[in-house]
Amino acid sequence: MTRAMVAPVVVSMGDPAGIGPEIVVAAVMERPDWLERLVVAGDAATLERAARVVAAVRDQAAPAIVGVQSPGDVTSPAGLRVWQVCDPQPPVVWGFVQPEAGRMAARCIRAAAAAALSGQVRALVTAPIHKEALSLAGEPWPGHTEMLQALAAGHLGCPVADLPVRMMLSEPHLRTVLVSIHVSLREAIEAVTTDRVLETLLITDRHFLRFGGRRARIAVAGLNPHAGEGGLFGREEADIIAPAVERARAQGLDVQGPFPPDTVFMRARQGAFDVVIAMYHDQGLIAVKLLGLDHGVNTTLGLPFVRTSPDHGTAFDLAGTGRASPASLLAALEAADQASGPVA
Amino acid sequence: MTRAMVAPVVVSMGDPAGIGPEIVVAAVMERPDWLERLVVAGDAATLERAARVVAAVRDQAAPAIVGVQSPGDVTSPAGLRVWQVCDPQPPVVWGFVQPEAGRMAARCIRAAAAAALSGQVRALVTAPIHKEALSLAGEPWPGHTEMLQALAAGHLGCPVADLPVRMMLSEPHLRTVLVSIHVSLREAIEAVTTDRVLETLLITDRHFLRFGGRRARIAVAGLNPHAGEGGLFGREEADIIAPAVERARAQGLDVQGPFPPDTVFMRARQGAFDVVIAMYHDQGLIAVKLLGLDHGVNTTLGLPFVRTSPDHGTAFDLAGTGRASPASLLAALEAADQASGPVA
Repeated sequence: MTRAMVAPVVVSMGDPAGIGPEIVVAAVMERPDWLERLVVAGDAATLERAARVVAAVRDQAAPAIVGVQSPGDVTSPAGLRVWQVCDPQPPVVWGFVQPEAGRMAARCIRAAAAAALSGQVRALVTAPIHKEALSLAGEPWPGHTEMLQALAAGHLGCPVADLPVRMMLSEPHLRTVLVSIHVSLREAIEAVTTDRVLETLLITDRHFLRFGGRRARIAVAGLNPHAGEGGLFGREEADIIAPAVERARAQGLDVQGPFPPDTVFMRARQGAFDVVIAMYHDQGLIAVKLLGLDHGVNTTLGLPFVRTSPDHGTAFDLAGTGRASPASLLAALEAADQASGPVA
Repeated sequence: MTRAMVAPVVVSMGDPAGIGPEIVVAAVMERPDWLERLVVAGDAATLERAARVVAAVRDQAAPAIVGVQSPGDVTSPAGLRVWQVCDPQPPVVWGFVQPEAGRMAARCIRAAAAAALSGQVRALVTAPIHKEALSLAGEPWPGHTEMLQALAAGHLGCPVADLPVRMMLSEPHLRTVLVSIHVSLREAIEAVTTDRVLETLLITDRHFLRFGGRRARIAVAGLNPHAGEGGLFGREEADIIAPAVERARAQGLDVQGPFPPDTVFMRARQGAFDVVIAMYHDQGLIAVKLLGLDHGVNTTLGLPFVRTSPDHGTAFDLAGTGRASPASLLAALEAADQASGPVA
């Protein structure tokens, strides 16, 4: 099987009022090798407009926008392949929250997820959407993750609760999986339970086994300074986290910890571990963002397919300028590519 | 005034069973220019033993150990100047917690602090001590900071409560001051009060003005993810931290925030701020340690003199091998030197 015949990666175009369409175009202009490996779930006119502004700013020819009839089509002529997922319509105004933009973003996600769930594509990379626009469009989900979780559960015919997911943030030298994300620090402490830490470990291990073909070397961070210093500064390590680590090890996982939070990320970066389980949002994100804002990738673990996204938003202030950097999107494409392993 | 006539930096030798004496010797062997700028508060026989093992490992001549009668003596012959602060005695056994070692470590700190308080030296750099040895020696303080705070308060004739201190951790590209240190994360959240954050801001500002000769550009981190995202993930930013920032600004301080914790350290590292106020231990330490373990420096802010220390412990397992790295001690010496500014 040649590389060109491998199922492509599908990119959902994102909110058409944001930088999503432009960074998709910029990504394939910087890395033309991606042209034959991806298909965009989106709108051709919106991408043509994006191609014009990016080409003008870069003073470089834009790729042709090529319509395809199905997401798995890898035989169409050279160009940026676009799978039209909604009725063609005039592009939306750049830089504003608007229901039409939210509707189009949702259509792209639904179509791309269906393609991933049916195996027509081998991974999904999502360009940024705007929460308010999604809400104005009548969608009940606060963001990509919840929406994909619901679509996957629907496809599998199981309750959403049976499909727990976790966020992994990564840059080239460090990966971290978060026990909780968008809750206050007080609530995050309450979310550190043995069951939840164990679930995070199992989801992480399964992701690496299923999509990476190997068991991950996992490190678990403590919750308190010095991982509690033997109980002097907190008991969560001994009472909650260590039992989860033990139970995971009994199931064969390669897990160590809990370790002092202020040195475990450094050790992982130096190669001692493949991934660090962070007990709360900022514990993991301070580390990853400090090492590489331009190359941060968000991966959703626990879905039945690989899904990555750039680690930034719609950047309405930059939309239409053609100047947004595709670096994080390219990193997300690479991460999806590696995790979903094209057959040689 | 020539450089040689500037008051020296005093280095307290640390626990003689640990790596302190060896890293002092190794530091001046790597950077002989420090020989004329420092004096060690310590024990000559202990330093002579350290010099022998370090010289053997490095296959390089050790500096002569030169006794001086007072810490401010800058006229003695070339060599490593040692101010004998206890009765000469046989060196202790390497690598063990022992009361004699704790007693000697405490004598070094007392003498060095007295020299700093009386102005005979221009800064104090403390080599590592062992908490248990200090305790076995009958000293009531858990560590350097509390001991120096008590000695300074005694010298000034004020209650210790009138001399609040904060820990600053720094590496060459990032400085962070911690609102709280060795308490559980739950207790750390309780310690985030408007008064305590304001006190941290005032101590930080005063340190830079007094020892750096300029107002610091201070950034304040939030407590919650995204600094609470407008109250969605926590109210501490709006209710507690922002009022402290406002009160500090009303007093003329150059303060901004609260900012999302996962990006403020990156912005400071890029030069936007001189120092970041961290709401809890790991928020600040994950960032600083990830950037530079070998060059981490601990500075105590709030004392009437400059005090820095390397960001590591006694490393009993390495003591006597001559192999301990003086990198962090040298960084502490540089930091003390810069903060206490020799007159040109």
